[in-house]
Amino acid sequence: MTTIHPVILCGGGGTRLWPKSRLHIPKPFQVLTGESTLFEQALARVSGPDFAKPIVIAGKPHVDFILKQAGRRGVDELIVEPEAKNTAPAIALAAARLDPQTIMLVCPSDHYIADVEAFHSAIGNAVSLAEAGWLVTMGINPTAPETGFGYIERGEELGTGAFRVERFVEKPDRSTAHSFLKRGTFSWNSGIFVFRAGDFLQELSTHRPEMAKAIGVSVAEGSLTSTCFHPAATPFAAIAGESIDYAVMENAKKVAVVPVSMGWSDIGNWQALHDAQVKDESGNASNGQSELVDCENVFTMSDGPRVSAVGLKDVVIVVDGGEVLVLSTASAQKVGQLKGAKGQ
Amino acid sequence: MTTIHPVILCGGGGTRLWPKSRLHIPKPFQVLTGESTLFEQALARVSGPDFAKPIVIAGKPHVDFILKQAGRRGVDELIVEPEAKNTAPAIALAAARLDPQTIMLVCPSDHYIADVEAFHSAIGNAVSLAEAGWLVTMGINPTAPETGFGYIERGEELGTGAFRVERFVEKPDRSTAHSFLKRGTFSWNSGIFVFRAGDFLQELSTHRPEMAKAIGVSVAEGSLTSTCFHPAATPFAAIAGESIDYAVMENAKKVAVVPVSMGWSDIGNWQALHDAQVKDESGNASNGQSELVDCENVFTMSDGPRVSAVGLKDVVIVVDGGEVLVLSTASAQKVGQLKGAKGQ
Repeated sequence: MTTIHPVILCGGGGTRLWPKSRLHIPKPFQVLTGESTLFEQALARVSGPDFAKPIVIAGKPHVDFILKQAGRRGVDELIVEPEAKNTAPAIALAAARLDPQTIMLVCPSDHYIADVEAFHSAIGNAVSLAEAGWLVTMGINPTAPETGFGYIERGEELGTGAFRVERFVEKPDRSTAHSFLKRGTFSWNSGIFVFRAGDFLQELSTHRPEMAKAIGVSVAEGSLTSTCFHPAATPFAAIAGESIDYAVMENAKKVAVVPVSMGWSDIGNWQALHDAQVKDESGNASNGQSELVDCENVFTMSDGPRVSAVGLKDVVIVVDGGEVLVLSTASAQKVGQLKGAKGQ
Repeated sequence: MTTIHPVILCGGGGTRLWPKSRLHIPKPFQVLTGESTLFEQALARVSGPDFAKPIVIAGKPHVDFILKQAGRRGVDELIVEPEAKNTAPAIALAAARLDPQTIMLVCPSDHYIADVEAFHSAIGNAVSLAEAGWLVTMGINPTAPETGFGYIERGEELGTGAFRVERFVEKPDRSTAHSFLKRGTFSWNSGIFVFRAGDFLQELSTHRPEMAKAIGVSVAEGSLTSTCFHPAATPFAAIAGESIDYAVMENAKKVAVVPVSMGWSDIGNWQALHDAQVKDESGNASNGQSELVDCENVFTMSDGPRVSAVGLKDVVIVVDGGEVLVLSTASAQKVGQLKGAKGQ
């Protein structure tokens, strides 16, 4: 198989995992599932003979975490974004640092994937398409009528397990999400992409010529210090931030989706994190000292104090940094409304 | 009205309010409702022109709390029990320190009474009976088929709001409790008693002669230091501990009950404590820093850390001394099963 160049995006913030994602330790760099951080898991998933050493793209506050957690294998290059401009410019920076023929595998750093074998198999399909000039997005087979994700509708089949993208759909309302789930021709937009660096930059030049030009200047005038590449800040600052979906994927001609079921979660809130835990026969999971009596589907996470729970169902309990949060699993999306989550 | 001599019992332990009732601060001496401790509230309820200064009975570990919380008015005498022997010996000690004609009002120190006027009015009824030689128990009009309380069945009416006791019933099962509630002739046994000191001691001599004798010796050989009376330990140690109900009330001839509705709670568990709080229009109550979103009938209590709750119903959250407890209100009786509550 062609060598694949992983590009790991460390961006985003999010308040829905408060209080765990505060204290300046962003979500990718915390141990939330299993024994390693989400970033460490993201790196581990793209190591092996098929993969080059990864490019990582992040802001300055993340650099120390990344260099520490990248471990012995290290990174090919750490691109330090002068400021956050959403995914299109970040991915363009990486593409501009690579040979145009290189197959890029773009992955978020803060997702969870239970079935890594399925992930690798889907990458195989995607790479074949990328070699034929397609921009490929990985689609997650939906398991619920989620309203927090974008959806992708499949068009004609392009080969085993791959389809032309019919259309991208923004986060739908509940009844639309239900109908998508029922029709069975929709995937969740995972934010995982496979394409040749040159193909991506060409499409960017076509649809966002100013962004493409600014990226070019920012990279040409950037500086390399050890493994850290610093794009020039001034041209980068002029870019209008935009997601890869808006800037490129929704406009490009040859866009394909490879649907996959791989136990994926964006760990976007406490419910998602609970789902990604290994649970006991009552559906309970604990991270930290705890005792549960008569509990069902309860998840506790504590950075120290013992958590005792009695007679609860579908509840998440988090103790972190002197804050105590208790929520019903179904209310996970509302955590961002709390004063604490807003930093008050 | 005759002067009434209050006798406040500070005994018992209990693990069902864990983690709040740990750390060697027993329940009576903690602020659990309103602004003052349950002990302070118990004292305040029996101050005024009708009442003598109270006798307080407690174990050695409680002495400092009592002297500190008794405040300016102070106590008539603090009887320091050499060891805990249940209520009959404790009350007998107080009776033996009083003139036989004195009307005693025996009250637990860790109960909550919302309607103090109703309490005083019931005492008025009880005192009239006590002056006629009756041993009077205050009965609480039951509001639910509780299985955690003893019940008292009413017999013939003795005058306005007072009845001869037909029988005492131990903690019933759920269906029996339901039938008691339906019949309307049963009260909960509150542990509040009114009688003349001499009448009580005489009945004790009749039904528990050995206990009565041992109490006599223990008081005769006891010593008074400032306001603390120390009964002699050796004769007291020989006593078989027993409740006033078993030792005296169930055996005596002239036993009356005065039923009353006074917003009474024994604050026996977290549900009872929640019930005794002033709540907002959603049934929520908070003691300490908290933020509740989409919550109903939720009670939070924290000794420091902020508690945030989202989408919960009928839940109690307690943060105390580095322990975090979350329970469904309906499971309040099971808190004692936790390792933490057992001191592990």
